Amino acid sequence: MSSPIKTKPKSSMKIENAPTPHNTPASVLNSYLKNGNPVSKDKMPSTINEEDISKVLSSNQPLLLQSIQDKLGDLVGQDSGYLSNLPVEVKEKIFSLKHLQSELFKIEKEFQIEMFELENKYLNLYKPLFERRSGIVSGNVEPTEEEISKGREIDGEEEQEEGVREDSEEKIRGIPSFWLTALENVPIVNETITDRDAEVLDHLLDIKLEYLTEGKPGFKLTFIFDKENNGFFTNETLTKTYYYQSELGYSGDFIYDHAEGEEIDWKSNGSNVTVEVEMRKQRNKTTKQVRTIEKLTPIASFFNFFDPPKPNNEEEERDEDEEEEFDEDEEDLEARLALDYSLGEQIKDKLVPRAVDWFTGTALEFEYLNEEDEYDDDDDDDEDEDEYGDEAEDEDEQDDFAGRTEQAPECKQQ
Amino acid sequence: MSSPIKTKPKSSMKIENAPTPHNTPASVLNSYLKNGNPVSKDKMPSTINEEDISKVLSSNQPLLLQSIQDKLGDLVGQDSGYLSNLPVEVKEKIFSLKHLQSELFKIEKEFQIEMFELENKYLNLYKPLFERRSGIVSGNVEPTEEEISKGREIDGEEEQEEGVREDSEEKIRGIPSFWLTALENVPIVNETITDRDAEVLDHLLDIKLEYLTEGKPGFKLTFIFDKENNGFFTNETLTKTYYYQSELGYSGDFIYDHAEGEEIDWKSNGSNVTVEVEMRKQRNKTTKQVRTIEKLTPIASFFNFFDPPKPNNEEEERDEDEEEEFDEDEEDLEARLALDYSLGEQIKDKLVPRAVDWFTGTALEFEYLNEEDEYDDDDDDDEDEDEYGDEAEDEDEQDDFAGRTEQAPECKQQ
Repeated sequence: MSSPIKTKPKSSMKIENAPTPHNTPASVLNSYLKNGNPVSKDKMPSTINEEDISKVLSSNQPLLLQSIQDKLGDLVGQDSGYLSNLPVEVKEKIFSLKHLQSELFKIEKEFQIEMFELENKYLNLYKPLFERRSGIVSGNVEPTEEEISKGREIDGEEEQEEGVREDSEEKIRGIPSFWLTALENVPIVNETITDRDAEVLDHLLDIKLEYLTEGKPGFKLTFIFDKENNGFFTNETLTKTYYYQSELGYSGDFIYDHAEGEEIDWKSNGSNVTVEVEMRKQRNKTTKQVRTIEKLTPIASFFNFFDPPKPNNEEEERDEDEEEEFDEDEEDLEARLALDYSLGEQIKDKLVPRAVDWFTGTALEFEYLNEEDEYDDDDDDDEDEDEYGDEAEDEDEQDDFAGRTEQAPECKQQ
Repeated sequence: MSSPIKTKPKSSMKIENAPTPHNTPASVLNSYLKNGNPVSKDKMPSTINEEDISKVLSSNQPLLLQSIQDKLGDLVGQDSGYLSNLPVEVKEKIFSLKHLQSELFKIEKEFQIEMFELENKYLNLYKPLFERRSGIVSGNVEPTEEEISKGREIDGEEEQEEGVREDSEEKIRGIPSFWLTALENVPIVNETITDRDAEVLDHLLDIKLEYLTEGKPGFKLTFIFDKENNGFFTNETLTKTYYYQSELGYSGDFIYDHAEGEEIDWKSNGSNVTVEVEMRKQRNKTTKQVRTIEKLTPIASFFNFFDPPKPNNEEEERDEDEEEEFDEDEEDLEARLALDYSLGEQIKDKLVPRAVDWFTGTALEFEYLNEEDEYDDDDDDDEDEDEYGDEAEDEDEQDDFAGRTEQAPECKQQ
């Protein structure tokens, strides 16, 4: 999964404004001096000893950077002199490398397009499995004995005794609350689901993924609801479409451009889980008649997913006074966009390809493992969890991941 | 880039030992009760009110999880009852979905193999550009006027006046310290480079990347040194090869299996930057003769990259007494493996495809942007950096990223 998304770098993050001591790596300053290549001393304030700087820089400890920056004072943000003072012939060679780099970017774009096509090819290969899953979940088809016994083998479970089946009970259609349960286990997504949302999502029968292969690249998520029993809105499907930009990002990946949702046709204000309804009495000043009006206040809801924020693509000229207010709005917008993109990615990359594991909670454990990786191990936690460990052995829904190795370290190809 | 790598999940992280309240999502507990489906109450301790649990769980705030776990006490680690108490016919449907999931894993493996081949195809397309870069950097070829002027256009820079060129000076071969400078800007890698390493890396002429397409999949990094001027070791090349496991990870990506380095033929103990040499006098008790011996102590060095740690693949039976010591060793080993894999990924994914941008420091700014994304924005920092911003405008090595958009949000396809 990629990291959260921002539509625009802060102005301070643009190259022109970035602090530049990184451009003069420690040892190079050293080695250039050693090699007798010219390093201009004009730009060094006389109060700071060149040797000191190089000594501090050469300590190679990133945590020292701040203190170095403090120490360097005015030097930070200035050209440290290294790059701009390179001999002309070296500068020219660097220009030529930049040209080669731009040629590589062009080929990388073709690569990304081919990779996108490959993803789409395989999505189509997965489709029959997803359709079968959809049928079983919604109750339109019943699983075969073979599917059941193969799945049981994956779990390493013995054949169930026949006696347990209670034929007297009413037949259960599909797997009730399958998608709701799965969604509530997916990180980030689960934080957006309110109790009221859950009642609506209980009618969710499937989530389908498609890639947009014509026109602007991107992907589309289609949420399919049980129209007959859904008392909340009349839409049978709700779609959310994410579009990528035509230019790739610096690392060679697609960049989000914007997302489009779909208007939800709520049956009444009361069934609309994205608003809070307050009844207010109004008295007509002339007629003295009292009428009741509904005041609608937007509230947090998973269903706001279908009304995504719109990125602000135009950088406008602003007064300095407007700047601060704009920054706050911009930051808020960026946070909402980042959440919106993350939700889309979680559903596309995690939920859709592994829905049953999100339903059982199996997929969640791999999630924890990755987090532990990022934040490093904590021994105490492990011991605590070990204590609980043995008691869960009778759990029969915990499987061996269908042949996937339990080892966690994963490496993306690109 | 993928997150740091661990070869093995902690035993506590195995599914059998994981706490399972996640298996009973809040609203489902609710909705199942509502739908009249059986939820066993036998397993609930009588002191904990079922409604309370569901209320706390349904708050959907992950930060509450710990307090929920505390509150649930003995319940944590026990099957919450939801999954194992599902009706048999629903369980069977879940088994069938697990079978479908395992079928999907099989197709995903083919996908990963095809993607690997696609990566290799494009690496071969980049090769002429990398070779040209190598030639210019090492000084074996000179850039053409066209390459220089196209690179200058990318920077949006005016044609340089001819007068600046100082023909009187000695001709500079290639771009001195190119790879050292670039390496010292790459996060994680730069933390491993000592002052002594830098002197050796100053003789690094190229880093080549290859994919292993026969036998075990993986990739190989070849470091090419200037044999004539390298007074430290006799190897002309040093290689580091990373192998992937034959089984994919849960998320469908390759998993590291192990890495292999190469023995460095140091010219003398004194030139070996991976050890500290201490001279010790020894007196022969019989002859009373004094001789001087060299005591070698391993020290931190970038060149330990070529002597990677070996993952401990076998889970051995151990006494409880041995357990604690083992855990510490294991943790240390995992940390060293994680670092080793990260170094390989940084060089493969970041440095090799963008070397000139790491040399100039341009690539580093995108790095900062991503970090800012992960840890959220901090307004104060931005303002500080803004203050420095304007002073750097005369920097002539800062480019517009050769047609790549400056916007940062990137999304991986998979």
